[in-house]
Amino acid sequence: MFDLDAYLSSHRQRINAALEAILETSGPTDRILEAMKYSLMAGGKRIRPILCLAAAESAGGDAQNAMGAACALEMIHTYSLIHDDLPAMDNDVLRRGKPTCHIAFDEATAILTGDALLTLAFQTLSSIEFDNSHQAPIWLRVIQLISHAAGYCGLIQGQMVDIASEGSRLTLTELKSMHRLKTGVLIEASLCSGALLSGLNSNQIKMLENYARNIGLAFQVADDILNIEGDPKVMGKAAGTDKLRKKATYPSLLGLQESKKFAKQLVQNALQALESFDKKAEPLRAIANYIITRKK
Amino acid sequence: MFDLDAYLSSHRQRINAALEAILETSGPTDRILEAMKYSLMAGGKRIRPILCLAAAESAGGDAQNAMGAACALEMIHTYSLIHDDLPAMDNDVLRRGKPTCHIAFDEATAILTGDALLTLAFQTLSSIEFDNSHQAPIWLRVIQLISHAAGYCGLIQGQMVDIASEGSRLTLTELKSMHRLKTGVLIEASLCSGALLSGLNSNQIKMLENYARNIGLAFQVADDILNIEGDPKVMGKAAGTDKLRKKATYPSLLGLQESKKFAKQLVQNALQALESFDKKAEPLRAIANYIITRKK
Repeated sequence: MFDLDAYLSSHRQRINAALEAILETSGPTDRILEAMKYSLMAGGKRIRPILCLAAAESAGGDAQNAMGAACALEMIHTYSLIHDDLPAMDNDVLRRGKPTCHIAFDEATAILTGDALLTLAFQTLSSIEFDNSHQAPIWLRVIQLISHAAGYCGLIQGQMVDIASEGSRLTLTELKSMHRLKTGVLIEASLCSGALLSGLNSNQIKMLENYARNIGLAFQVADDILNIEGDPKVMGKAAGTDKLRKKATYPSLLGLQESKKFAKQLVQNALQALESFDKKAEPLRAIANYIITRKK
Repeated sequence: MFDLDAYLSSHRQRINAALEAILETSGPTDRILEAMKYSLMAGGKRIRPILCLAAAESAGGDAQNAMGAACALEMIHTYSLIHDDLPAMDNDVLRRGKPTCHIAFDEATAILTGDALLTLAFQTLSSIEFDNSHQAPIWLRVIQLISHAAGYCGLIQGQMVDIASEGSRLTLTELKSMHRLKTGVLIEASLCSGALLSGLNSNQIKMLENYARNIGLAFQVADDILNIEGDPKVMGKAAGTDKLRKKATYPSLLGLQESKKFAKQLVQNALQALESFDKKAEPLRAIANYIITRKK
């Protein structure tokens, strides 16, 4: 029986150590570095970097080779949360159980901290060792992939649509499209980066993309369900906020029971996409199940 | 006699065409793309991309090879202006004679537009043609260089120091250090990128770095002088704002006449750094002189 808790915990430790090492290497601690550490080391689930490493492992590759990409993905995720929390956007005061960056520091620092983490992501992605320079074309493809996912055709477009649609009635198709942009594309990029860096073939990468599309959506449906049923103490953030904001969610469009069925079906699709992978893809299978059973 | 006006104008046209082509390739126009175009095509001087192309030409290289880097540098410069203008930062309402991005659109859109341009810069830097993949290690070095200059050890640190020091008395050393971060490092990265991409040797790159350090500082001293003596109609932005904000400037520390002498000396140093270059470096020489004679 595969022990997912142990796997997640050991990978989280490795990722945290790698992130800390990147932040340590850069001179004296000052306000901006302090704010970067505050948000980056705030106890995130590390879902994206773990998926990146698990994809690298799924065909027997060396996960360590993908660590730079894993760290970059977490930096981009964290930057997007810092900016989304700003007063001009979602105006959130609590994140992962702690005051959001602009509350703990100030608004200008929070904007610049997000900018700094986004920029550091690309610095990390371009800092391969010179003796690995034959891998340079692959790293360029990874940078291409991640910047596209994070950019105005992906993550940023998703946030624009989210802001514009607050309070309005989205259809199920519109909701799916928005979530694909807001979370799906970066999750897809996480798996593809890991796969590219450990040399998976294009057929295997397509299967992982299919897996990613399904768990990305499942992740969002599960988040919406947690916003209704979750325990604020366990989640480290308030529950019931979607309803207060009249946000379109899967439960509001499909009902709570249908949403749970939908999330389960998506996880089934994700598992099916991995059918031709052997037991090295066990972590990816376990993560798919975890996404709809997690409590935070 | 070298015709700088014609050179700047033809290079500006090429850069603008390249920037427009990048923005055109991405589906339907929506609010975020509209805001990106609004700020990116607002008639900037294109100093950084022109320096990048001129560096590429200075040893006989093909400037077109460096066009991706040139465009990325302008995107990063524009993103930093959009974020610096935000209410939480400098709270500026006018930029290049037009309402700033958050005035023309709204604050959330301006934050996301800056994010999108920063991200698009790295997408552009990583999108080399497949048949150029032997150049991949050089492009990775360029990404490394530019992300370092734009990051929390460069541009972003400079803005942090700028905000923190508003109203306080900086020494000349502190002022120089802040300006090196705020404008110097990105100008250095502009010249180095162009040089790397057209295959200059490390000795030549060092000379261009020296040139860059001097004109970067001269550029800032000249900006401070323009803020006192410039014509708001020509500049497209208000004059006298530094004094109103009690900002530390070269004229406030050195006096106006000493500041002009200092700027001239820096330009002399820059020209000296180019001594071993032949007439292909004529544009760089002319730009050095232009920096302290420009009216906007």
